[in-house]
Amino acid sequence: MERERFERQLAFILEADKEKNILRQTHLSGHGRRENDAEHAWHMAMMIYLLKEYADEEFDLAKAMMMAIIHDIVEIDAGDTYAFDDDGLATQKEREKAAAERIYGMLPDDQRDELKQLFDEFESLSTPEARFVKVMDNIQPLLLNQSNGGEDWREHRVARSKVAARHRTTRLGSKAIADYAEEVIEENVRNGNILDE
Amino acid sequence: MERERFERQLAFILEADKEKNILRQTHLSGHGRRENDAEHAWHMAMMIYLLKEYADEEFDLAKAMMMAIIHDIVEIDAGDTYAFDDDGLATQKEREKAAAERIYGMLPDDQRDELKQLFDEFESLSTPEARFVKVMDNIQPLLLNQSNGGEDWREHRVARSKVAARHRTTRLGSKAIADYAEEVIEENVRNGNILDE
Repeated sequence: MERERFERQLAFILEADKEKNILRQTHLSGHGRRENDAEHAWHMAMMIYLLKEYADEEFDLAKAMMMAIIHDIVEIDAGDTYAFDDDGLATQKEREKAAAERIYGMLPDDQRDELKQLFDEFESLSTPEARFVKVMDNIQPLLLNQSNGGEDWREHRVARSKVAARHRTTRLGSKAIADYAEEVIEENVRNGNILDE
Repeated sequence: MERERFERQLAFILEADKEKNILRQTHLSGHGRRENDAEHAWHMAMMIYLLKEYADEEFDLAKAMMMAIIHDIVEIDAGDTYAFDDDGLATQKEREKAAAERIYGMLPDDQRDELKQLFDEFESLSTPEARFVKVMDNIQPLLLNQSNGGEDWREHRVARSKVAARHRTTRLGSKAIADYAEEVIEENVRNGNILDE
């Protein structure tokens, strides 16, 4: 074991612990508290493994799971940006880029480059792994929100066009899951949980 | 998409959400609140990927990550049993077996069998994946506890023999990491955080 290398790995792992304190807008099932980024990523990694049969392209399972696990690490510095917050979204990329430099930069160079690559692929949806991970990033909060009767959508007065725009990326990774998501969305428009403009 | 199959998968995924409410005895870094099972599993999956070079045996990365992700699912029914709680440990196996039947049983049969197999391997440390996942299960709380000055050990008045017994399984998966863990333990015995009988 090269001790300096190991200690850089441990330093990153300890820094990542802070992700457990970054709260999202989604609430846990059973009308629970707000979810944090680490919980969201854990749930996504599980879903990638269990729902892989619905991916439209072949993909590397371990790579996709790790991409899910680390995709929100930048929010330790940049904070969570709600999917339907236009002001936040305008500065999100820049804040997250600086965060990626600092946080992934704690790792040994080879792993820093590998994780930055995973993060960049995810952001640009440029690989089959990224496209399927994005499906999970979209439908994990949808499932929780649906289980709570759509209260996250109601609280934020979210409009149908915004939800539909987000789920356009779902269709890039899994047509079957995108069809399901559209069903859920239409049901919530009918119920008045999502605003029909 | 076979709809009944998909709905069983979603039902399991939603049930798993409850793991975010199962608290462990470990506290988050920065003298934070208690950690929950989902956060612990997320951290372990990340560590498996980043520390895989220290495993003493070749192993399947995606399989090990999924094993980490689901290894505590049974605690939704059985509760968390602290590693140094002898009374709890006496009934743990039985409670967890019933929980595995119910919770993994929500999945389609092939995935139920696959996840029960992963869980059984982990419990019996019968495969290279299980042995490396166990290393992570042992050192993830050690890292957090160490970062907080050993307060979890002090709070529970944990004895050196107990900590050493637990870390015997660390040596089965990674001698290099076991050596590191022993260093940390000895340091905490010297500091009085771990009781030296």
